Amino acid sequence: MKEKIKIGYIGLGRRGTYLFKECLCEMKDVEITAICDTHVPHLENAKQILKEKGLPAPIATTDYHDIFAIPEIDAVFIMTGWEGRAALAIESMKAGKYAAIEVGCAFDLSECYELVDTYEKTGVPVMMLENACYGRREMMATKVARLGLFGDIVHCAGGYHHTLPECELFKGIDDEYRHYRLESYIKRNCDQYPTHDLGPIAKLMKINRGNKMLTLSSFASRGGALKHAAERILGKDSPYANMDYKQGDIVTTVITCAGGETIHLCLDTTAPRPYYSRNFTVRGTKGMYTEERKVMYFEGMEEEIENNEEEMYEKYDHPLHKEYTSIGVKEGHGGKDWLVIRAFLEAVKHGTNTPIDAYDTAAWMAIAPLSEASIARGGMPVDVPDFTKGKWMRRENVVQSKYCLDEVVIDESTPIY
Amino acid sequence: MKEKIKIGYIGLGRRGTYLFKECLCEMKDVEITAICDTHVPHLENAKQILKEKGLPAPIATTDYHDIFAIPEIDAVFIMTGWEGRAALAIESMKAGKYAAIEVGCAFDLSECYELVDTYEKTGVPVMMLENACYGRREMMATKVARLGLFGDIVHCAGGYHHTLPECELFKGIDDEYRHYRLESYIKRNCDQYPTHDLGPIAKLMKINRGNKMLTLSSFASRGGALKHAAERILGKDSPYANMDYKQGDIVTTVITCAGGETIHLCLDTTAPRPYYSRNFTVRGTKGMYTEERKVMYFEGMEEEIENNEEEMYEKYDHPLHKEYTSIGVKEGHGGKDWLVIRAFLEAVKHGTNTPIDAYDTAAWMAIAPLSEASIARGGMPVDVPDFTKGKWMRRENVVQSKYCLDEVVIDESTPIY
Repeated sequence: MKEKIKIGYIGLGRRGTYLFKECLCEMKDVEITAICDTHVPHLENAKQILKEKGLPAPIATTDYHDIFAIPEIDAVFIMTGWEGRAALAIESMKAGKYAAIEVGCAFDLSECYELVDTYEKTGVPVMMLENACYGRREMMATKVARLGLFGDIVHCAGGYHHTLPECELFKGIDDEYRHYRLESYIKRNCDQYPTHDLGPIAKLMKINRGNKMLTLSSFASRGGALKHAAERILGKDSPYANMDYKQGDIVTTVITCAGGETIHLCLDTTAPRPYYSRNFTVRGTKGMYTEERKVMYFEGMEEEIENNEEEMYEKYDHPLHKEYTSIGVKEGHGGKDWLVIRAFLEAVKHGTNTPIDAYDTAAWMAIAPLSEASIARGGMPVDVPDFTKGKWMRRENVVQSKYCLDEVVIDESTPIY
Repeated sequence: MKEKIKIGYIGLGRRGTYLFKECLCEMKDVEITAICDTHVPHLENAKQILKEKGLPAPIATTDYHDIFAIPEIDAVFIMTGWEGRAALAIESMKAGKYAAIEVGCAFDLSECYELVDTYEKTGVPVMMLENACYGRREMMATKVARLGLFGDIVHCAGGYHHTLPECELFKGIDDEYRHYRLESYIKRNCDQYPTHDLGPIAKLMKINRGNKMLTLSSFASRGGALKHAAERILGKDSPYANMDYKQGDIVTTVITCAGGETIHLCLDTTAPRPYYSRNFTVRGTKGMYTEERKVMYFEGMEEEIENNEEEMYEKYDHPLHKEYTSIGVKEGHGGKDWLVIRAFLEAVKHGTNTPIDAYDTAAWMAIAPLSEASIARGGMPVDVPDFTKGKWMRRENVVQSKYCLDEVVIDESTPIY
């Protein structure tokens, strides 16, 4: 087991810098060996962060090839824009380095196939850093599902309900922090951002480990909210107020699974709404959970229950979250970012596969191009590839450490850093 | 204008008797001329209700043909089981009598076509008594939509979230009140009960009057909850605990509209859940409404608003509901039943078309067989018939009285009875 993990870090934009500063640089078993960004001020900023924290100066480069060429680097964080993330992960794996990639989607299925193929050929793991999988309510619900208290799971729903125009999309529109999703909203129409909702559901439903996604159907409403928001926020003369956006405002996706379950996803990031929600919903033959009403319900309980989440956390909090909360939440997002990064690093340290592995990463990244194809065909179901090529039927659940999402593992030998 | 409306009433089961007793018999401009049920104790019960209210004894018959043969009857309420409701409405129209039918669906599209055809040939109106269209929140949202405060409508969602096993389905399983949906759940797999959610959405979206439904895709999750509930409620040896139910537990339906809008429906009546909801949701380019969180939101309002429904009722209550509330709610269901029946009766009195007319009734009844076909094909989109045969493009909104659902009409010449 490695005591200290040597990290290469590619991509120091808004999100990359946040995780770098608030999580990675705070972890005692991590050494930032090298950093990379094509934009020199980003590199300077990251160096300054390290300096202020009293950490050693890293190798800094604008050419990512340099990162993969450094032999002592164990793992690479890939926090670049959407395009080319899979390609960088593939290069990292070929260089023998664990690859962590920020949430996002493929543009074409070939990226997903190549990711899996590279994993199978090199044996080097990759992991999508889907922090929602380590959300407290998602982990609690998964624990309750494993305890059988929901009965047989029949349906899950989730959504990414988060108005970007109001909070992010049109901020800094003309500087280097221009939001990476804007161009995609101008040119594409699909569920571009499904993994915050799908990730925890896929884990709960044992996708790729006993279950798999079979078909996907996707439907986009008309668009209109982005143009209107641009007019209101940037003014009628802004080019963004006089542009056609391909993206529909509400994208509804339904996935059917081999076990007969259905999954309902929703992309809802352009039309005005008052609050953020992932609408995480679990339905079983004996009980349910709903984020919208913060209610966990089991058969026989009285009706008309309102918000019993705190009571449920007392009873069913996942041991990982219980421990994490007891030592004090170390960053925003309720610990999700910290825990997803720890999950990756523990895999690197122990030399095991990652809890969100190549098959999961590929299957989740495939949603955007599948959704795009289905929408273009008026909602025709499209096939979800089986990236495991049949192995889902007999793949073991990962029981590697307490960060495992397939079983509830209490592993006291791995303290939370 | 008729001062007194003469009514024939067919079907005095649980729901039929409720509306009969709590609404119709309480209305001063109504005369119950004849009643019909194949089950004599139901007839006796209805006669007793009339007697206790000091109302004249009606003609009572077990043969519905008798009802249509009575010349002075103006309108017939058809509150029988699901099967044959459309056929009775058609007979009623052919006999020159306005027909009101309880909510429900067709089994086959031919029923819908024949309903419309009969309306076009006879000129006699029909109306589905979809009470959810007269729900206070639905009418408020429709008014707000007409005021343009949501901007362009892009998407609506709704569902029928109501666990029947717990509250209704297995009660009185062996007596004459056996729930009418049970057999359908044993033999069919579809959204069998979509109109509580679809009705108000179709009205808000101007379906059949400027807009129309284009395609429908439907997905059923595995079933399991009914068998489990039967075991728990009726015991392991009950035949209902040892039966295969075709109905999936959660049915998700997506409808695309000519205007580019999407509609998301959900049938959720078998798996355990703690509260009733129609999940009525309206999304526009400037604002939204959500029943689940009881929030109405317009762009520019602060974020993180919780339950502002009362405040919104103060500002935007529909004039019909404002008046109704001011004179005192007359029955349960928050006045919905009363108002939907008044809407029908005002049409009869004034000799106008009904606010939920033959085209609406046919289109809404078509959802079940369309959903069944799509589910059977793995979620393939199926065409929603255009029962107006193109007239939707230029049909006028109905401005007949204050019960109109297409415009917000303040009509003081029609007091609420």
